Amino acid sequence: MLDTSLSEAIQLRIDQKTKPLGSLGKLESLAHQLALIQSQGLSQAVEQIQINRPTVLVFAGDHGIADEGVSIAPSAVTQQMVLNFLAGGAGVNCFCRANQVELKVIDTGILIPVESESSQLVVQRIGERTCNFAKEPAMTPEQVEQGITLGRQIVLETIQNGSNLVMFGEMGIGNTSSAAAILAALTEYDVESCVGVGTGISPEQYQKKVALVASGVHRAKGQDPKTVLAEVGGYEIVQMVGAFLAAAEKRVPILVDGFIVTVAALVAARLQPECRELMIFAHQSKESGHQRVLETLNANPLLDLDLRLGEGTGAVLAVPLVRAAAEFYNTMASFAEAGVEVEC
Amino acid sequence: MLDTSLSEAIQLRIDQKTKPLGSLGKLESLAHQLALIQSQGLSQAVEQIQINRPTVLVFAGDHGIADEGVSIAPSAVTQQMVLNFLAGGAGVNCFCRANQVELKVIDTGILIPVESESSQLVVQRIGERTCNFAKEPAMTPEQVEQGITLGRQIVLETIQNGSNLVMFGEMGIGNTSSAAAILAALTEYDVESCVGVGTGISPEQYQKKVALVASGVHRAKGQDPKTVLAEVGGYEIVQMVGAFLAAAEKRVPILVDGFIVTVAALVAARLQPECRELMIFAHQSKESGHQRVLETLNANPLLDLDLRLGEGTGAVLAVPLVRAAAEFYNTMASFAEAGVEVEC
Repeated sequence: MLDTSLSEAIQLRIDQKTKPLGSLGKLESLAHQLALIQSQGLSQAVEQIQINRPTVLVFAGDHGIADEGVSIAPSAVTQQMVLNFLAGGAGVNCFCRANQVELKVIDTGILIPVESESSQLVVQRIGERTCNFAKEPAMTPEQVEQGITLGRQIVLETIQNGSNLVMFGEMGIGNTSSAAAILAALTEYDVESCVGVGTGISPEQYQKKVALVASGVHRAKGQDPKTVLAEVGGYEIVQMVGAFLAAAEKRVPILVDGFIVTVAALVAARLQPECRELMIFAHQSKESGHQRVLETLNANPLLDLDLRLGEGTGAVLAVPLVRAAAEFYNTMASFAEAGVEVEC
Repeated sequence: MLDTSLSEAIQLRIDQKTKPLGSLGKLESLAHQLALIQSQGLSQAVEQIQINRPTVLVFAGDHGIADEGVSIAPSAVTQQMVLNFLAGGAGVNCFCRANQVELKVIDTGILIPVESESSQLVVQRIGERTCNFAKEPAMTPEQVEQGITLGRQIVLETIQNGSNLVMFGEMGIGNTSSAAAILAALTEYDVESCVGVGTGISPEQYQKKVALVASGVHRAKGQDPKTVLAEVGGYEIVQMVGAFLAAAEKRVPILVDGFIVTVAALVAARLQPECRELMIFAHQSKESGHQRVLETLNANPLLDLDLRLGEGTGAVLAVPLVRAAAEFYNTMASFAEAGVEVEC
């Protein structure tokens, strides 16, 4: 758990800034959280919040369930989008450029591996693609452990390279089905309320998707989190769980993206409840299950832009708000410094 | 009115990007609006949206009604905060630094003028402070015209200097009372639903504020917009009305801040309905009247961060979203360019 003994000093610092009390709303809680994280182990609150080399890790993996037609796109598109990430042409690349965020793409097991010399590509495949979880376990318990280890590893490297703000994105045709199944297995929500339209399927496909997800949930419900991952998870989701665990262990804040990433966050928080304190929730997406998992994590996200793209786009879009929170904490004048008479 | 004949071509360009249809939500409408504005007079849609030198103009003015105790702070604080803006210590300064936004402060008539050689200060005072609108008209019709002219002038200069995205902020003890009175005079909302707690007054002060605002509204209700400004307006609000009119005339998009600025936007839209098309609504503030004026303008803001600071802070915080919308319009690959098979 974070040591909260400096919370009061941090709040006092925020409250003495030249603004009406609480008038920066969510940015005040964000600044408080960042300052508390960066003050751990110190005898007084940090004077300056540092935001260094924010980095998004986009985990890509393929899903056996995609063969059932739960998505508008075939598994081959996962590889095509990975190539698009490496070429700088995808949504997440645009927002990384606009907001000075670094990006890496991790092949956790996509159907057709890419051939690329790009330094942005990290290959740590734990299979070709998962098995169809509607019929059988998506992966073995060993693959779950291996995935968690590999996810941890890439985050530790990222932190070692100087990043102190990380975020995770995902790409994988079929992965909203996997995320919905994990959510329904770990919570009391019924399957239907966890399943959304993903990239935009028809009402008939939606009913089919609900039934397929329900088959997996039937086996996974009530199991421990790692067994749930083996039953209905995805390689990219498993690696993200490891990534959350490692960032939290290193006390690096994690800007949490949309539905699939937030489900990985939930699994990490079930395995290690302290994780939750390092999470900053970037946005509320349009995917219906996202609201459920945010409620489960008691999260109040920063943005609500009707996004439903994935890739980490929502997290990257929230980076300027993190920088703004740090900047006001670091450089906004106090009433005394500015010679302002009252709290106006 | 904007020529919308290129709307279809702009939407086609957006829809061919490598993302599910509509999956960038509000950023898609924003990119569409920016592209349409920048394509006016051209024979085809712009290839690149340009965002140059975004600038916030913070209009400061004092209000006679402040003597009635409608705020927690005295009028002297307006000057102290102007000095804070010029020293770089206020909230809006922090967010300008974080988001690379330029800032100017305009003295439209604050009680105690500042002595400063700062190039960021523009002095265009139309009085010492307004009269107490609970008892008499806040200003003369001549002051309204003069204010509109001065507000136009500073925006035209800003555009001349290379800015093609402007935003307005305000500072003025008592100005939520003035904004509430203008809103109640121009719409069907009752006074109570237009009045908020401003910088944080007590329930007793709130009731008093409602009664004082009602006295002004009683005279102003049903009058034309300029008479409403003379009866219950403020110098900073009047200059912002001129600022909106000039930006719209020059077809420069305006990122609209919180309650007081949005009330100025409403007045401008009543005087010149075409203004509305150039407005991008930055955020939904906590000040209760803000929701009413946004509804009146049929606006769906980008951010909702529980802000209630003013100064233009909400607008400056939304600048990265404008840049992100431009970036995805400008550089995101199409399905054809990226070799992605289907709309995934």
